[in-house]
Amino acid sequence: MPKVVDHEERRRLVAEAVWRIARTDGLEAASVRNVAAEAGLSPGAMRHYFDGQADLQRSAMETLLARVQERVAALDTEGPPVEATARILLELLPLDDERQAEAEIWFAFTAGARRDPGLRALADGAADEMRAFVAGIVGVLLGPDAPADAVETETARLHALVDGLALHAVQRPGAVPPARMRAAVERHLAELAGRA
Amino acid sequence: MPKVVDHEERRRLVAEAVWRIARTDGLEAASVRNVAAEAGLSPGAMRHYFDGQADLQRSAMETLLARVQERVAALDTEGPPVEATARILLELLPLDDERQAEAEIWFAFTAGARRDPGLRALADGAADEMRAFVAGIVGVLLGPDAPADAVETETARLHALVDGLALHAVQRPGAVPPARMRAAVERHLAELAGRA
Repeated sequence: MPKVVDHEERRRLVAEAVWRIARTDGLEAASVRNVAAEAGLSPGAMRHYFDGQADLQRSAMETLLARVQERVAALDTEGPPVEATARILLELLPLDDERQAEAEIWFAFTAGARRDPGLRALADGAADEMRAFVAGIVGVLLGPDAPADAVETETARLHALVDGLALHAVQRPGAVPPARMRAAVERHLAELAGRA
Repeated sequence: MPKVVDHEERRRLVAEAVWRIARTDGLEAASVRNVAAEAGLSPGAMRHYFDGQADLQRSAMETLLARVQERVAALDTEGPPVEATARILLELLPLDDERQAEAEIWFAFTAGARRDPGLRALADGAADEMRAFVAGIVGVLLGPDAPADAVETETARLHALVDGLALHAVQRPGAVPPARMRAAVERHLAELAGRA
C-alpha cells in the first residue's frame, strides 16, 4: 500500500521551516537544502513541491500572508468604528509571542523583496492592501466631508505609525511594551475620530 | 619621496564604497574584497585600515551616523518649538535623493545588526539617542504638567511615525511623496502642541 501523504500539511511544515530559518539566520539562509533539513524532508521530496529556492521562499511568504489574513477575517468588526478598527490594527501588531515571531519573519521577507521580484510582488501587494485598509479607516473616522488631502495625509500617518511600531518591536523586541503600542494606536484613532 | 596618503579621505572613500554595495546588493555583499574593488584599493591597503569585514562594516556604519549627526547639529534650532523640532525630524526623513540613499543604507545596516553584535551596538545606541530626542520634543510640546504615562505613549507614537515613514520610503521609494511625509509630521507636532 502506498504511503499516504498529506500534501497540505507537508507544505505547511515546509513553510514553517522557512520561517524559522528566516527569523534566526535571515532569509538568504533559507536554501532548499537547509529548509529540507529543518523540515526533516529529503531534497527529492522538496523538489516535488517547490521549483527551487525562489519558489520555496515565495510560497512560504504567501502562507504567512494567508495566515494573517485568515486571522483578521475572523475578527469581530461590529460596534463603534474606533473600537472595531482598533481591534483589526492591533491584530496586526506584535503584541504577543506569535505575532512577534510573525513580524520578525515578515521583515525578513520584505528585506529579501529588495532582491527577488516574486517576494517584491507579494510585499507590494500586501502593502497596497494595508494602505487601502488604512485609507478606509481614515475615511470612516474623518467622515465624508473630509478633504481628500487630509485623508491622504492621515492615511500616510496612520500607516506609518502601525508599521513603525512593528519595526521597533522587530529591531528591539520588548523595548516598547505591548500596552504602550496599544495605547499609541488607540490614542491615534480616538484623535482621528474626534476630528470628524 | 614617499607617496602622501590622506588617511581620512581614504577611510571616507571606503565607507562610501560599503554604502553603495549595501544599498545595491545588501550588506552581506560588503566583503573586504568587494569593497576594495569598489573603492579601487588593494586588499593590502584595506588591511591597513580595517581588521576584517566586521570592522569594515562597523566603521562604515559609524561614518554614516556621524554624517547625519553633523548635519543635524548644524540646523537652526531657534524659534517656536513646533517649527524647530519639525526642522530636525524632517532632516531625518528621506525627503531628497541623498537622504533616501542614506535611509536605504541605514536599513541595510540595521538588518545586518540582527547578526553582528558590533552593528547591533551602533543601531541600539542610535535608537536610544533618537528615542531620547523624541522624548525631549514630546516633553516640550506637552508641557511640564503632562503625566509621565502620556509622555511615554506620545514618545512611542512619534518615534514610530518618523521611522515608519522612513521605512515606507525605503520599501517603496516615491510611494509617499516628500510633501506628504512632511505634512504628516507637521500635523502630528501641531496636534501634540495643541494639547499642551
